[in-house]
Amino acid sequence: MSREDLTKFILPEEKIPKFWYNVQADMPTPLAPGLHPGTKQPLGPADLAPLFAMGLIEQEVSTERYIEIPKEVRELYKKWRPSPLFRARGLEKALDTPCRIYYKYEGVSPVGSHKLNSALPQAFYNKIEGIKRLTTETGAGQWGTALSLACKLFDLECMIYMVRVSYNQKPYRRVAMEVYGGKCVPSPSNLTECGRAELAKNPDTPGTLAMAISEAVEDAVKREDTHYSLGSVLNHVCLHQTVIGQEVKLQMEMANDYPDVVIGCCGGGSNFAGIALPFIPDKMAGKKVRLLAVEPAACPTLTKGVFAYDFGDVAGFTPLLKMYTLGHDFTPAGIHAGGLRYHGDSPLVSQLYHDGLFEATAVMQNGVFEAAMLFAQSEGIVPAPESSHAIRAAIDEALKGKEEGVSRAIVFNLSGHGHLDLNAYDNYLTGHTEDVELSDAQIKASLKNLPIV
Amino acid sequence: MSREDLTKFILPEEKIPKFWYNVQADMPTPLAPGLHPGTKQPLGPADLAPLFAMGLIEQEVSTERYIEIPKEVRELYKKWRPSPLFRARGLEKALDTPCRIYYKYEGVSPVGSHKLNSALPQAFYNKIEGIKRLTTETGAGQWGTALSLACKLFDLECMIYMVRVSYNQKPYRRVAMEVYGGKCVPSPSNLTECGRAELAKNPDTPGTLAMAISEAVEDAVKREDTHYSLGSVLNHVCLHQTVIGQEVKLQMEMANDYPDVVIGCCGGGSNFAGIALPFIPDKMAGKKVRLLAVEPAACPTLTKGVFAYDFGDVAGFTPLLKMYTLGHDFTPAGIHAGGLRYHGDSPLVSQLYHDGLFEATAVMQNGVFEAAMLFAQSEGIVPAPESSHAIRAAIDEALKGKEEGVSRAIVFNLSGHGHLDLNAYDNYLTGHTEDVELSDAQIKASLKNLPIV
Repeated sequence: MSREDLTKFILPEEKIPKFWYNVQADMPTPLAPGLHPGTKQPLGPADLAPLFAMGLIEQEVSTERYIEIPKEVRELYKKWRPSPLFRARGLEKALDTPCRIYYKYEGVSPVGSHKLNSALPQAFYNKIEGIKRLTTETGAGQWGTALSLACKLFDLECMIYMVRVSYNQKPYRRVAMEVYGGKCVPSPSNLTECGRAELAKNPDTPGTLAMAISEAVEDAVKREDTHYSLGSVLNHVCLHQTVIGQEVKLQMEMANDYPDVVIGCCGGGSNFAGIALPFIPDKMAGKKVRLLAVEPAACPTLTKGVFAYDFGDVAGFTPLLKMYTLGHDFTPAGIHAGGLRYHGDSPLVSQLYHDGLFEATAVMQNGVFEAAMLFAQSEGIVPAPESSHAIRAAIDEALKGKEEGVSRAIVFNLSGHGHLDLNAYDNYLTGHTEDVELSDAQIKASLKNLPIV
Repeated sequence: MSREDLTKFILPEEKIPKFWYNVQADMPTPLAPGLHPGTKQPLGPADLAPLFAMGLIEQEVSTERYIEIPKEVRELYKKWRPSPLFRARGLEKALDTPCRIYYKYEGVSPVGSHKLNSALPQAFYNKIEGIKRLTTETGAGQWGTALSLACKLFDLECMIYMVRVSYNQKPYRRVAMEVYGGKCVPSPSNLTECGRAELAKNPDTPGTLAMAISEAVEDAVKREDTHYSLGSVLNHVCLHQTVIGQEVKLQMEMANDYPDVVIGCCGGGSNFAGIALPFIPDKMAGKKVRLLAVEPAACPTLTKGVFAYDFGDVAGFTPLLKMYTLGHDFTPAGIHAGGLRYHGDSPLVSQLYHDGLFEATAVMQNGVFEAAMLFAQSEGIVPAPESSHAIRAAIDEALKGKEEGVSRAIVFNLSGHGHLDLNAYDNYLTGHTEDVELSDAQIKASLKNLPIV
């Protein structure tokens, strides 16, 4: 069978990366330091120690190009890694495009998304440092599910604050976390001071990731045996996800091809970073590869936000990070892509976007589901609403190639399946999915409370 | 990396089988012929032509050992085949067993189960014979989902009658079928004469697979452009599923191992047949491999039924098949493993069981979910309730090996994931899952209406 006939590009188990790739070694502009939320002075490791394992704090600030993946983590990666890269032959035919479309499928992980790539090392480093319990927040529920399983595999307790709108939209998600032994409550909850305060003010709030982060952080700092865990945004999370892009590069070699454009959806930024960061050295060396982040028009952080220091959460408990932001008290509309409802973005992604190494685009919800349906009916896989943002952009690129009569190689990260998002599809199929786009006035208003540093 | 370290055994795409294996070439007792439901005379191809494509009818009666897989079907198999064989290292550790446990994971198919293995060729043969529309029944919804996608890929309409108890238990299943373009109604429905008659008699009936089959058959015979499609039981369906066992044999060679016991859950019999039939020639040649079918105690067809001619449906529309049966008007309790709620069993599986080549066991629902939870927490994958019957039996075999101090190789078919069955897990976790076992008196009563031939 020749390469041209292959539908899947599968690497053997020994090709699971042995190192994570740390883009901090290669950035044209070094990252601005995180600032202490009280003093507004640059953070030291000691400031982060109440929340994170030292192994993770070291990764957060490291400028080493390659960081070794612990063998315990790599052993568990074998449950699904290397994940397959597919040639989207069905979708290409449906679009009648001259372009070659490929997708990296992270939905084969046992929890159904890329999130386990970081959940496992986070649980591991906390375990070896004697921590007994992790708290976290989750939007769509993908991260909470991943951390629940990772905690179970490393024998830790797991407590998840889930954004209320997603908790109600995706009831199966709570059950999935419980099957893995985690505990999940809707946020804001009455378990924390900040949660109780928000409920008193806005009893009907849909919740936000920023609020859920405040609750998880408050819970973690209150208990000696507990650390906090974050599923995106931070440098060490993006670092862990680079297994994706490293595998993609080997798989594109197998396919005897190289991408013209690499696409990922972008909320906190970790899945986009995962597929895109390993291409930064190529780009710095002069290769013409475009790296495109796709966000919802309802939460257009990169395309309409500002590059400034802001809190990661609503209560101002977290360090100040320099990132693209819509303001830490911005409440995005309750779109189905709950995992992309975040006011900020990864500082790594933000700086590289600011320096022109990444591109970004924002897309509307109905167009996203239209793309998701076409993908499901031609490729078979029902994609997560978040991942479908990348599909929308990939289809648009393929149609542009068709219009221009050019064959390009388009690669996107299908970060997860949508088996637990079928109510969102039901909404779309019955015409109940709204398109939400923010006005400039709304964005200006949401930015008025940025902290002064 | 040595074989002993591998977690997954992955075959390259060119190892997708080129032929289906037809056990009718190797059976010690030939199959008893199907009988016409009216005349009770042996069926000819013409009797089946109103329901099935001729290509499938030929496979139903063929005694050729190998039947070539059409290239159009094999091309689509590439979307997920060969499926992985996993070494269950996490489960082995949790059980502290000396046994080597392997599972073939069919849940990687885009629809999440083995059912697509037969849905694709069924849609293909109907398409090339000019059929425009297929009707079918579905229990748990796995088959309906698979046929919806297969019909979409071959540009056919798809109409699904779904057993009402499952339709209500698994609302996401209907949406999944609709995403693929299929139409799904709860059965009994008011769209057919037999459905209306049943609703008049038992307005609150949970429905049965046998009833849903009657509706789908009635719908198909009424329209020239429509054929009927069945997701299990029939010889051609079991034939298509033999891709599973053929791949397992190659993968066990990769693992430098050979199974002592091969396990599959058993409702209509197709997934068990899929993994077990390719081992029949080995068994006939004297190899000591046990082939174990696992059924629910609430529907113990092989372990407590009789081997006799019976209808496949409740209304008596289908041919009479010689099989293990609990009686065609038997209504099993509404257990969560909806795909195993069938009064009969594949004639192939039945005859081979009757001849002592297969073994069977029946297990209780709570023990099944206990096994499923242990599997999810140690292997990561949340299994379908049906497939979890096989996990229960595999765990029991591994514990027996531990008790006896013997290391055996145990292989089971993990026929699908349970992402759309999380309400069943919720029921189990909240203590609402009942154990149902039939008494001998109940079975005797349900057998009193067997047809006289």
